[in-house]
Amino acid sequence: METKKPPTACVLIIGNEILSGRTQDANLNFLATGLTNLGIQLVEARVIADVESAIVSAVNGCRELYDYVFTTGGIGPTHDDITAECIAKAFGVKLEQNSVARDLIAKLCERNGIELNAARLRMANVPAGARLIENSVSAAPGFQMGNVFVLAGVPKIMRDMFGGCKSELAGGVLVQSQTVVAYLPEGIVAEPLRALQERFPDVEMGSYPFYEGGRFGTNLVLRSTDRTLLSQACTDISSMVEGLGGEPQVEPS
Amino acid sequence: METKKPPTACVLIIGNEILSGRTQDANLNFLATGLTNLGIQLVEARVIADVESAIVSAVNGCRELYDYVFTTGGIGPTHDDITAECIAKAFGVKLEQNSVARDLIAKLCERNGIELNAARLRMANVPAGARLIENSVSAAPGFQMGNVFVLAGVPKIMRDMFGGCKSELAGGVLVQSQTVVAYLPEGIVAEPLRALQERFPDVEMGSYPFYEGGRFGTNLVLRSTDRTLLSQACTDISSMVEGLGGEPQVEPS
Repeated sequence: METKKPPTACVLIIGNEILSGRTQDANLNFLATGLTNLGIQLVEARVIADVESAIVSAVNGCRELYDYVFTTGGIGPTHDDITAECIAKAFGVKLEQNSVARDLIAKLCERNGIELNAARLRMANVPAGARLIENSVSAAPGFQMGNVFVLAGVPKIMRDMFGGCKSELAGGVLVQSQTVVAYLPEGIVAEPLRALQERFPDVEMGSYPFYEGGRFGTNLVLRSTDRTLLSQACTDISSMVEGLGGEPQVEPS
Repeated sequence: METKKPPTACVLIIGNEILSGRTQDANLNFLATGLTNLGIQLVEARVIADVESAIVSAVNGCRELYDYVFTTGGIGPTHDDITAECIAKAFGVKLEQNSVARDLIAKLCERNGIELNAARLRMANVPAGARLIENSVSAAPGFQMGNVFVLAGVPKIMRDMFGGCKSELAGGVLVQSQTVVAYLPEGIVAEPLRALQERFPDVEMGSYPFYEGGRFGTNLVLRSTDRTLLSQACTDISSMVEGLGGEPQVEPS
């Protein structure tokens, strides 16, 4: 039986503040988990600067390579928010005011008694042909252009927008995962683990050392779309760890 | 006066566990800050999978594009640690046991009364011609090959290794930074900020909204290698915020 390959994705985190170290990214882990839970394989993530050539070239490179591209950041009202313009350039279309987006922003301004100025209206500009992505936090929408989903950088808004993308994403078979915690240093489990990986080529085995309460240990993370194989591999790894005196504990992960 | 361009860098975070969402990356922000503090411009970061073709192609692409490349992850003793092999492939050289690295690992094993087995010896394999990077936490060294610095994924070890790289890095003029905190929504500061950005092309102005204690605000982050310009821009932005009733507070950042 040949397994169908899962849909693939790439995340582009747009923002000088991440690259200067001023801000710790808070979006990648959420998107990685969200995509995994949809059966979509996140193959790559990039952090790029607020620079037109960098954004256009990353978007055009990645939308060819992957089924889905998600961008975060650069869709606010200020001069350093250039993502929408860059996506329009990448697709070779005009950036234009979207009347639905305009109305959403105008309504929010009215409700909050704030001025609908030129800066706020900029947030209604999307590439011609884009589909809006709802923002129930602060009105100004994200958008989808082809296979590129353009989300806000503010984590709360990004999460809200990602929720609104899900219906547009064709998920794949879910990857199941289990962790065997071994109270053994990695150097001890490495060789028998390699042998088990060879016996189970369709179960991805990752090994992550830890040091906790004065003890060395290794988390052995097993991932597969095949529950039966996963369960067999988990049993065999537990026995291996047991045999080495490593007090295996199995955890879903 | 033409300003000399700063040296550039790229960070490659190697690890399936980041892309699956299991693990939150804890290295990028440290490296971003460390490089900024050396006057090196981090231009891009990528998270890539434990897959040979992905690692080789990212390393070869990025070492051409940037002055420095830093990798994290994939240099432990298990089968999924393939970074050293991939760097050797990327440079077209052999992977070989380094006698200094072997002795360091052997000494640690002896001191801790643990076996120097095949898995642990794998950590002494580096590409031919590589320079070792000291690891004072757990002995097994990182290495430098050309302009590529290969560091561990475990944050404590990565930090230690990065400290050991600094003497090999030619830094640039430091970027100075100041933040003007404005208690104004971004939509209000956007237009006057754009005008100020046009007046100060050599001061990078970033705008980051926040919501705190029931108030909207915007952090206006100014960055420049020129202290005088930075100080002028900071004064002008503070006046602008003051004029809008935004209670400016200047913070070094």
